[in-house]
Amino acid sequence: MEPASLPAVSRMALCGGTHGNELSGVYLVREWQKKKRELEGEAEPVTVMTLISNPRAVQQCKRYTERDLNRCFTPSLLSTLVSDGVPYEIARAQELNALLGPRGNCDWICLHIYKYIQTKLSSMPVRLLNLNAPPDQNYFLASVGKHALSIEIGPQPHGLVRADILSTMKEGVHLMIEWLRLFNSGTEFEGGIVEVYSFLKNIDFPRDPETHDITAIIHPQLQDQDFCLLKPGDPIFLSFSGESVVYEGGEPLYPVFVNESSYYEKGTAFTLTRMKKVEIPPLRLKRD
Amino acid sequence: MEPASLPAVSRMALCGGTHGNELSGVYLVREWQKKKRELEGEAEPVTVMTLISNPRAVQQCKRYTERDLNRCFTPSLLSTLVSDGVPYEIARAQELNALLGPRGNCDWICLHIYKYIQTKLSSMPVRLLNLNAPPDQNYFLASVGKHALSIEIGPQPHGLVRADILSTMKEGVHLMIEWLRLFNSGTEFEGGIVEVYSFLKNIDFPRDPETHDITAIIHPQLQDQDFCLLKPGDPIFLSFSGESVVYEGGEPLYPVFVNESSYYEKGTAFTLTRMKKVEIPPLRLKRD
Repeated sequence: MEPASLPAVSRMALCGGTHGNELSGVYLVREWQKKKRELEGEAEPVTVMTLISNPRAVQQCKRYTERDLNRCFTPSLLSTLVSDGVPYEIARAQELNALLGPRGNCDWICLHIYKYIQTKLSSMPVRLLNLNAPPDQNYFLASVGKHALSIEIGPQPHGLVRADILSTMKEGVHLMIEWLRLFNSGTEFEGGIVEVYSFLKNIDFPRDPETHDITAIIHPQLQDQDFCLLKPGDPIFLSFSGESVVYEGGEPLYPVFVNESSYYEKGTAFTLTRMKKVEIPPLRLKRD
Repeated sequence: MEPASLPAVSRMALCGGTHGNELSGVYLVREWQKKKRELEGEAEPVTVMTLISNPRAVQQCKRYTERDLNRCFTPSLLSTLVSDGVPYEIARAQELNALLGPRGNCDWICLHIYKYIQTKLSSMPVRLLNLNAPPDQNYFLASVGKHALSIEIGPQPHGLVRADILSTMKEGVHLMIEWLRLFNSGTEFEGGIVEVYSFLKNIDFPRDPETHDITAIIHPQLQDQDFCLLKPGDPIFLSFSGESVVYEGGEPLYPVFVNESSYYEKGTAFTLTRMKKVEIPPLRLKRD
């Protein structure tokens, strides 16, 4: 592929606590706010802004207080008039948008950072999940940035900090800063092929049509198998009376977000994705 | 040891949802309420009552609504006058006490059931934790029963059901019922030595004396090491600046409840226990 060239990236926002009970990001941001100088020195000349996305939810150690903040960044919610009855998170989304926007797209820079982290981070596998939302339906905080990446390390238990997850998250962010510095200073990055998992659809639990209670749970053979190929005929649910429900789709796909407690209320037992190999071009700084 | 003999156990209460976000017990109780006949047949002549301990917290998928129900069973709270301002859980504790009490003690029957489950359950290790509370300070739901056993399978993520944990919990309860039937029908159980972990003290996280924020997290070498011997000099905490804090106690002890999210608010990073070998006598039914 022809090399691409893009302007320097001069500012970076590090947001933790978008969900108030996912504590690794919260503790990492707090730590960096204490060591502001050190982080500034490391990132220079990139300016790093650190912030807690949902301070009220963090204070209560809940995912959110009135509405899931990470579903509030659609253009329509960002332009809702904020009056007394509006949920706290919608108002907060507008503040964050004013601070961090305007929105951009997942682009060569994101894909190159992903490739870089995947090569350098040894403690666990690194994958890219593209949620494919069209701009007018993209409700994620990350969507307000010009080059938007969320680091998810999981499954991460809610309401506590594990040293292993915290240290991997820290390593991921340091690698991101390292990439930005290299890119801004003129390093050319090789192109290549990367794997991208793209959102297809959410699958709900089987439910009782009247009470809406779930009637089956994730099958033990699917539990903990995020990003592992699911083939037609593989078991996906186990009913309380002991019967297996199998996957009846027409093609093998990759499940993610398998059995996430926060998604029970959203009607998602797991999400199906398709894996694509994407070619990315060599990339270097565009000089004036 | 001399054989002991005790009267038959004619009633059993199966309580799920004492904490509303620990869902295995909730789903197990609901399943058994649907299959009442089947369970009655299996347990006969023991009468089994199934109930959800904290229905309001279950409905909200929270540990509790106003006060931790499993800290409300002290004699003093059980005799508090219930008026308008009293937390829901205190009122509910009094209802449960009226239904299930009066209280008993952990005794030969509990220790024999523990030994039986330990022998028969192969999917994971089984241990007995004795919290050693004197009767006037014992605040646990189980304390209102005559022979009180809580089955804890963990760590169990909050707000979701895992098939492996649900099936182990089910197996544990079936073994308990099996033991009761055998005992009631005259089977003599051999005595022997069992290991019991006894509560010594709770250890809090290191905290900032002014803000009370935690300044260190569980050390990766202690994470997931519940019931593994902790020796003086072993690391227990890792500060955000990267320094290890070591265990300075005078004797090797066994940590439990390591890094439980629900205990951050209670000031407990982990709990230290001492392991004792306890001799239990052969046991059989006392005939009239």
